[in-house]
Amino acid sequence: MKDLSFVVIGKSFSDTKLLAKVRGFTVIVDEPSEIGGSDKGPTPLEYLLIALAGCLNITFRKIAAERGVNISSLEFVMKGTLNPSKFQGIPTKERAGYKEITVLVKLNSDAPKETLMEILKEAEKRCPVSDNLIMPTPLKIEVKKL
Amino acid sequence: MKDLSFVVIGKSFSDTKLLAKVRGFTVIVDEPSEIGGSDKGPTPLEYLLIALAGCLNITFRKIAAERGVNISSLEFVMKGTLNPSKFQGIPTKERAGYKEITVLVKLNSDAPKETLMEILKEAEKRCPVSDNLIMPTPLKIEVKKL
Repeated sequence: MKDLSFVVIGKSFSDTKLLAKVRGFTVIVDEPSEIGGSDKGPTPLEYLLIALAGCLNITFRKIAAERGVNISSLEFVMKGTLNPSKFQGIPTKERAGYKEITVLVKLNSDAPKETLMEILKEAEKRCPVSDNLIMPTPLKIEVKKL
Repeated sequence: MKDLSFVVIGKSFSDTKLLAKVRGFTVIVDEPSEIGGSDKGPTPLEYLLIALAGCLNITFRKIAAERGVNISSLEFVMKGTLNPSKFQGIPTKERAGYKEITVLVKLNSDAPKETLMEILKEAEKRCPVSDNLIMPTPLKIEVKKL
């Protein structure tokens, strides 16, 4: 299959607020007021969990359909834990990002739990967002002064 | 500093649509109609770029402020490229996720370009979302049948 590209334009409106334009959609990223934001939208780290939940939903349902497994309800409880020291510029051995992301998949299905676990293991490998988290992803950043 | 946790609940509404609840916000994830979605929101892979843009905005501006560097305008052009074969279940040597993410930072500032590049290099390390992409991030997934 051919490669696909995805493009997002993010305009910075303040130290915390960014308006992202993607196709016909506008998405607001912000921080809560307790930490100096204007609380107009979820934080970047929350959007990361949203991206992962959305990707697991699509991939899990796709693989279940491939195997003829019926899923009558499906919910994802996502949790990520990190230490903010590195972001804050405080010397630390901690990494900057989530140390671990846990996903609890709550569902209704007449399939046995082992089958559902197998589907989930396969979804973890085939979901692009989980692949980008589990395996290193190269970033290439350039600056252009206007 | 103490660890922080972030929680998102994602409810699946269809093969492509997920409603994510995070604090007071509801975020819709979907796929375009061309690929079987109902096009009610950005895709998971687009949210991944949004998360990264939002995080680089906050971290870049924070480090610029620490160094007394003024930034009068700031925009991020995010692009990610992937091959959909693995997601589709087609045998392939390609990875499932983005092979590479490119970020073009367009800005107005009276600081020299080298200083801006230095700030950006530091932001790349201190931004939690870029750290979760560049370095491997463990996922722990569990299933609960209701």
